[in-house]
Order: sequence, then C-alpha cells, then structure tokens
Amino acid sequence: MEQLKQQIRQHGIVLSEQVLKVDAFLNHQIDPLLMQQIGAEFARRFRDQGIDKVLTVEASGIAPALMTALALGVPMIFARKQQSLTLSGKLLSARVYSFTKQVESTIAISAQHLAAGERVLIVDDFLAHGQAALGLAAIVRQAGASLAGIGIVIEKAFQPGRAQLEKLGCRIESLARIDSLAGGRVSFVD
Amino acid sequence: MEQLKQQIRQHGIVLSEQVLKVDAFLNHQIDPLLMQQIGAEFARRFRDQGIDKVLTVEASGIAPALMTALALGVPMIFARKQQSLTLSGKLLSARVYSFTKQVESTIAISAQHLAAGERVLIVDDFLAHGQAALGLAAIVRQAGASLAGIGIVIEKAFQPGRAQLEKLGCRIESLARIDSLAGGRVSFVD
Repeated sequence: MEQLKQQIRQHGIVLSEQVLKVDAFLNHQIDPLLMQQIGAEFARRFRDQGIDKVLTVEASGIAPALMTALALGVPMIFARKQQSLTLSGKLLSARVYSFTKQVESTIAISAQHLAAGERVLIVDDFLAHGQAALGLAAIVRQAGASLAGIGIVIEKAFQPGRAQLEKLGCRIESLARIDSLAGGRVSFVD
Repeated sequence: MEQLKQQIRQHGIVLSEQVLKVDAFLNHQIDPLLMQQIGAEFARRFRDQGIDKVLTVEASGIAPALMTALALGVPMIFARKQQSLTLSGKLLSARVYSFTKQVESTIAISAQHLAAGERVLIVDDFLAHGQAALGLAAIVRQAGASLAGIGIVIEKAFQPGRAQLEKLGCRIESLARIDSLAGGRVSFVD
C-alpha cells in the first residue's frame, strides 16, 4: 500500500535493527485519513471472506480495526490486556508475551460478544513475533468461531511472526512488509 | 444524540447505581457506524473552535477520538497509560486516579506531537469524576497548547465530573447525559 510506505519513509524512525517507531502517524499520534485508507484496503482484500466481526487487541490495534470494520459494515471488538471491573461475566482469554515490552500479559474478551460459527478477521498494527495474533486466534478457537483472515498494517518480515501465523491456515495480508532496518534504513520486501 | 440514547436503552446494562456497562457497542465491542455518527456530531459541535488536534487516552477513548479527528480533518493523539519502550524522548505526563479501577496511573504523550499554541479538543467515552479529562487538560497546559473543548460520549451527570471540568473554562459537550441509574433503569437529563 503505497500511501502507507510513503508515511513510513517520511515519518518512521528506525530505533534499532529490530524497532521501527511510527508513533507520528500510526500508533500514538494517528493520521485519521491514512487510517481510513488502511481500513478500506483491508476491506478490499478480505471482502470475499464473509467476515462477521473484526477482532484486535488494545491499544494500537483499535484504530485500524475500527476503520476496517466500518468499511466492511460489521462490528469490531478489542481484547483487553487486563480485566477491568466492567469486563465481567464469562471471558475468553489467552496469555501473550510481548517481546517489545518483555512482559507476559493476559488478553481477554467477553464471551458473549463472539459466537460459535462467526467468521473473524484479526487486525493488528504490527507483526513481529506473532504473539498477539496467536493469542487472538486462540480466543477465536475458544469461541468456536472461525478464523477467516489476519490483516497486519506493518509486517517485520525479518522476524518469525509470519511463519508462526501461516500454521493457522488462513489468509494473511500485510500492507507494508519490511525486509530490513539495517543501517538505520527501512527496506521493503520487493 | 438520539441514536446513542437508543443504543444505551437497548444494549446498556446497569450494573449498579454508579456503573453503566456499554461494552456491547461502545467500549469493548464497537458499532463502527454509531462511532462514525458520534465523530460527526462532535465535529459539528466543535467545528467553530478552530481545532488543530484531538487528544484522548487509551483504550476506550481511541475510537470516538479517531472518528472525531477524521470528521474534523485533523490528527488524533492518544495518551498511553504506561511508558512503553517505543514511547521514548521527552514526555508530557499527568497522574490520573481511576475510581472505577481504584488505581492511580500515569498517562503520557510524546512532547513532540503537541506544540505550543495548538488548539486541542479532548474526547473521551465517559465522564464520571472527570479525572481522565483533567489529566489530559494538564498535559495540554504543559505543552503550552490551548484547550478548545471537551467532548464526552456519555456523561454521568449525577457524578461530580462536569463541575470539575467547568473550572477549566472551555466548552463541554456530552452526547448523552445520564441523570440516574437508580432502580436498574437509565434516566437521561431532560
């Protein structure tokens, strides 16, 4: 997706060979027009999959998931990272390790908002080691729902996430695939 | 805002005289079309205020703030509740006490994304005691920016938040004002 790659080239900051900071437009400050285009692009790529619901995890996944759900005309649900007082009732949960923050946390949704048989599209801002998406996929399985696809805004293709997710057997679409951050420079796949 | 009140009446669950659960459409599962209407309504109410940026706090504020920013054609930024590894550099922060979760936490944004003189609209999903909005207003002050307004999706008018925020001297707009949750029933102001 060319507009996204342009923003990454212009405003992305390479912090290390592993870490790309995109908090000027994607996951801290957000460019709403770019996010709308991201949602439209995911909708275009997954429109033939009969999606019933878009699933993500707080906080950075909310914006792209919301715009995708709006474009598809379906509800969005975001998993919470810790149980809040108002997230009561039966939960579906998974343990997720964050390599970035070096902590393991539980992510959970209310069971009542994901029904058996529903076709779910997982959307997230980054794919690195794939832990968040695997946790969300585990929640989809617990619900008896069906994983219809995974949409990733920025994939770090030099990290092992995609190989992990391919075992799930669904379509995976990334809007920008980064080949390398070596030398402080962003190189895209292709 | 009538569509919002209808959703609250249909899908809101009164957990106690203090707590209204709206996680079927607003802050866990999200109805993207309603959220788009919420954004359009905030944009309509604040369009004459010369807004440069919409500010909120993760996670529940992100969806309404994003849709408002899209409708106004300006960037959105969300404060993070704890410092992540990629939120580096100079921070603007405030301590916020959550009466719901009964914990105090720090919320912060990168100083580089809020400039002196910018006119800021704060958007959040709920107004109860006003602590989150007061923390965001403190961040606006630290940046030397100007608080142009506060937009709240659901105001619990029987709690002291509005009185706290009125001291800030800006326009406050709530899309649904709840007078009481007594008897397990939602009563709106008016």
